[in-house]
Amino acid sequence: MTEALVVTVIAVILLAWLIQRRLSQTPVDTFYDLSDGERKPHKWGYTDTVFEFDGPRSVRVTGSRYPLAGYSMPAFIPFAEEALGVPITPEEMMPEPPPQVPPAPCDHAGFDAALREQLDDDQVSITDTDRLVHSHGQLSVDEIYRLLYLGALGRVVDRVLYPQSEDDVRHIVTTAAAHGVCLVPYGGGTNVSGALILPQDEERVIASVDMRRMNHILSLDEENQQATVEAGISGKVLERELGALGFTSGHDPDSVELSTLGGWIATNASGMKKNRYGNIEDIVLEATLVTPAGDVETFHATPRNSTGVPPRVWLFGNEGNFGIITKATIKVHPSPEAREYGLLVFPQFDVGVRFLKQLRHEGGLPASIRLVNNNESRFGQALKSTPTAMKSLMGKVQKFVLYTLKGFDPLRMVACTIVMEGTRREVAQQKKIIFNLAKSYGGMSGGAHNGRNGYMLTFGIAYIRDFFNQFHIMGETFETSVPWNRIHQVTGAVEKQLHQQCKARSVRGTPYLAYRVTQTYHTGVCIYFTMGFSGKGLDQPDAVYHEIEAGLRQAILDNGGSLSHHHGIGKIRAGFLTQIQSEASLQVLRETKRAVDPDNIFGARNGPLADAAK
Amino acid sequence: MTEALVVTVIAVILLAWLIQRRLSQTPVDTFYDLSDGERKPHKWGYTDTVFEFDGPRSVRVTGSRYPLAGYSMPAFIPFAEEALGVPITPEEMMPEPPPQVPPAPCDHAGFDAALREQLDDDQVSITDTDRLVHSHGQLSVDEIYRLLYLGALGRVVDRVLYPQSEDDVRHIVTTAAAHGVCLVPYGGGTNVSGALILPQDEERVIASVDMRRMNHILSLDEENQQATVEAGISGKVLERELGALGFTSGHDPDSVELSTLGGWIATNASGMKKNRYGNIEDIVLEATLVTPAGDVETFHATPRNSTGVPPRVWLFGNEGNFGIITKATIKVHPSPEAREYGLLVFPQFDVGVRFLKQLRHEGGLPASIRLVNNNESRFGQALKSTPTAMKSLMGKVQKFVLYTLKGFDPLRMVACTIVMEGTRREVAQQKKIIFNLAKSYGGMSGGAHNGRNGYMLTFGIAYIRDFFNQFHIMGETFETSVPWNRIHQVTGAVEKQLHQQCKARSVRGTPYLAYRVTQTYHTGVCIYFTMGFSGKGLDQPDAVYHEIEAGLRQAILDNGGSLSHHHGIGKIRAGFLTQIQSEASLQVLRETKRAVDPDNIFGARNGPLADAAK
Repeated sequence: MTEALVVTVIAVILLAWLIQRRLSQTPVDTFYDLSDGERKPHKWGYTDTVFEFDGPRSVRVTGSRYPLAGYSMPAFIPFAEEALGVPITPEEMMPEPPPQVPPAPCDHAGFDAALREQLDDDQVSITDTDRLVHSHGQLSVDEIYRLLYLGALGRVVDRVLYPQSEDDVRHIVTTAAAHGVCLVPYGGGTNVSGALILPQDEERVIASVDMRRMNHILSLDEENQQATVEAGISGKVLERELGALGFTSGHDPDSVELSTLGGWIATNASGMKKNRYGNIEDIVLEATLVTPAGDVETFHATPRNSTGVPPRVWLFGNEGNFGIITKATIKVHPSPEAREYGLLVFPQFDVGVRFLKQLRHEGGLPASIRLVNNNESRFGQALKSTPTAMKSLMGKVQKFVLYTLKGFDPLRMVACTIVMEGTRREVAQQKKIIFNLAKSYGGMSGGAHNGRNGYMLTFGIAYIRDFFNQFHIMGETFETSVPWNRIHQVTGAVEKQLHQQCKARSVRGTPYLAYRVTQTYHTGVCIYFTMGFSGKGLDQPDAVYHEIEAGLRQAILDNGGSLSHHHGIGKIRAGFLTQIQSEASLQVLRETKRAVDPDNIFGARNGPLADAAK
Repeated sequence: MTEALVVTVIAVILLAWLIQRRLSQTPVDTFYDLSDGERKPHKWGYTDTVFEFDGPRSVRVTGSRYPLAGYSMPAFIPFAEEALGVPITPEEMMPEPPPQVPPAPCDHAGFDAALREQLDDDQVSITDTDRLVHSHGQLSVDEIYRLLYLGALGRVVDRVLYPQSEDDVRHIVTTAAAHGVCLVPYGGGTNVSGALILPQDEERVIASVDMRRMNHILSLDEENQQATVEAGISGKVLERELGALGFTSGHDPDSVELSTLGGWIATNASGMKKNRYGNIEDIVLEATLVTPAGDVETFHATPRNSTGVPPRVWLFGNEGNFGIITKATIKVHPSPEAREYGLLVFPQFDVGVRFLKQLRHEGGLPASIRLVNNNESRFGQALKSTPTAMKSLMGKVQKFVLYTLKGFDPLRMVACTIVMEGTRREVAQQKKIIFNLAKSYGGMSGGAHNGRNGYMLTFGIAYIRDFFNQFHIMGETFETSVPWNRIHQVTGAVEKQLHQQCKARSVRGTPYLAYRVTQTYHTGVCIYFTMGFSGKGLDQPDAVYHEIEAGLRQAILDNGGSLSHHHGIGKIRAGFLTQIQSEASLQVLRETKRAVDPDNIFGARNGPLADAAK
């Protein structure tokens, strides 16, 4: 190295350190824009945010809602074309199709009249848009792609109801039971298990019960660190309101801006910061479920109980089969005194996994730590802007250190994003343990700023899904929990299966597969996969996609993974249930269903009820 | 102070510090004697251990099983007499009554013949002792005192069955269903909710299913830190066998020597070290429940799932109503690298509570931390031996420091026992946080040795209960979980209620009440009460005791406590269920019961089934 280069390297390192230092002292805030916005009717998220071409070979995200927004990304299209092996150009893009027109809603004068005894005019809607919006979740292929680009319109709800109180909900349930109407609870509409897909042969009037007007914190008990909250509250509103009072729930699923408390409970949600705050079953102390047989609830939330089989067990994972969750008492935490981000780079995935396992043993777990594989790490890199001269230089230095000095292989190296929260002492302690341990695994710090961006990327990903859909590129995420010693077996089997299946079905180009470890547990981890391939030129691309996805799920199960870590069963994974549970288990669930809802008013038929007669 | 005193004080402090240092470096072991022993048929524990007079005014514990054993305790009788206001002398003691003879067991040749198709001769017992032993748990008054001293003999089981495999259990369940026989699962026999009390009007043959021969670790998966274990294993055998392999379950309920894995699940057990290892629902990943409708189980234990309502929810708190738990997959942990004990003394109870709450916030929670009130602290002191000259001097110095220099009031000060486990770094870190924080609450260290003894006292307490029973002193423990801001309200209400009730019922002497915080949670704590009073001279002392206990439980509920933290509902708390759960909740449980056991083969009638028809 020349002297000039040495000086430059030192200067850059100093600068990077200063930037990191400043960032690590950023005051604690939420990870996403807390402002409300207009929702897209079918695609993911807000109308202000679109992932689109801003030149023939570059893309950008509109608006200013996400850190990803407002700049041109010159590397993304080349990366995606290389990864998928198909052209992605403005010419290949499908035009936005005209909105679909659903059939007229079924009449039921008796039900409508009885509803109006309690509900106001604006609490019942039969508009086409409302009905369509409430007839699907966010499965990329089965719901969004089919609806928008294949013109496939399944059963559509006949009414959308907007209860504003628990009494409204009780009235709706009682009235539906009296008039033989089918109800489907609706939260944030972000479900990705097909739970909101309506049974095609349902002949009764179907009413969607949109819970989002029930979005208030009913009481905050600061001394006991708990709050009772209406179940229709979204994660964003919950955090905004709790934050104003100096508290947080700590629950941070990828869908946190849109999904609701009731939905989290119904699907067994997992938040990114579960190491500190727990998954939804750890956060919710008690909740109320309104069923046709009455309210299932415990009257007071006490810290921990041995009172037989508790009512709360009917709530987690009910997937809308049993009733409507109206409110829950949840743990809340004082807003953390400190938050810091981190990024670690490891030479390869299995080293990162060993590091994660050892970190649990050392007892220095941060609120969130996620390990992305090489593909996903490069995907993140491809979302960067054109570098400034300074950044370009820094990048070169970084690459020199990584690839030349440290000998990392750019096609094997992986990254780990870290969020540390707590008291200042806790954060300092975690930081020390994490970074010391990382060294002994050959890990290198990639900077707090990159850690922060990596964490927040999560909230922008689904917009990219909608961009790809326009090119018949069918992408989906799916997840599993896996014992520690099966991680590489499962990821390897999924990768092999995906390539074989795509080849066998003459899929154009190359399938893309990325994965990350999003959660660690005592006995294993959650692996979150992202896959995509071109459906162009395929007869029935959605059917082909389905067969491929089913093959991947089977590969996961065959190699020791679980049926789902947090997405749920709904309809798309119901066929696998008999592989994981005994017949008697499923039978008990069906009998439980009969106990609370003998007439199947909640007729969405998810999980073990997927094949149940009405 | 004279110079000599100053020198002595310094010398003693130095000595105490050296002793503590040595003790804090004691290698990690279990907290109780791992050797087997002969069980007493009805009283608590092992025949080698008896709490008895060794002089007219002093007592001792026989054998060498507990740290409490083998020395004379001169302070105990004076303390107890003062606390209870009644004489406790050898003359007052009732003689051990002759063993009861139960009625002959009901015949059922068809059942017996069908059983023998699978079971050997030694797997079926109809001896009087076996039948009597299996017809009760360990409620002090309702079960032990009534059986031994009031001669009250309720319904007794007709058969005791000893399955040795899951197939044996399936055969027993199928055969019982085919022949209309009632089954009651039996684990360690340590239940304290009346769950083993048999319905007096049960006309079918009743068979107790003693699971203790199913006590093997079926597989240990070191890499994923989990083990599959037969449900009849006791805590002691589990820890002995896991320990030999370098692992621990970390589950440490007071009854750990005797109680079983299946029993822990059936009653929602809580271990003393739950801060590190979790309560039973955190430890058990999956389990198998054999029911008349088939096996309820998940085929593979994966780290965390969202697969609808999981089968595991039928297990925790089932209290023997649904079937028999045959095996479970549990988390295991490498034996901790380090363990240290500690004792802290605080000027009064509410200061200790504030310290505990802040310690949670600071993130330095040890495996176990328990705060005993003044009465319980003095009870512990009363169990000491006659001090040596050195100890006597040390005691005087300690008292001088505590009462004179620090101004602690001996009738108000409280103690906190601490067990820290983990890596050396973790233990050192916890110690630093705990003792620094304690200082700011006016706390003082009482020495690691005393902390260790305080923790281990737990295992000897029930023997003292049996000692008192002989004087018609009816003592019992009961527990609740309470939000942080209701702790003093609940303890105050229980204290007031106990005194009022005893006065109103002309109970001799003074009732004794001690309590401790045994667990802390995010939203509150577990309070564990010990009470006792003399039943001598009362008409129907057990009935009076019952009314008083019910009054205390109502006071707990009225002031914001829960119905039970870890003892369960069984029969003695079933009457309160409608105060804590909605009718629909209870109805769902009854319907669930019908789904797995339509003919009520598991007819123990606990919890919501306490009033159910056969």
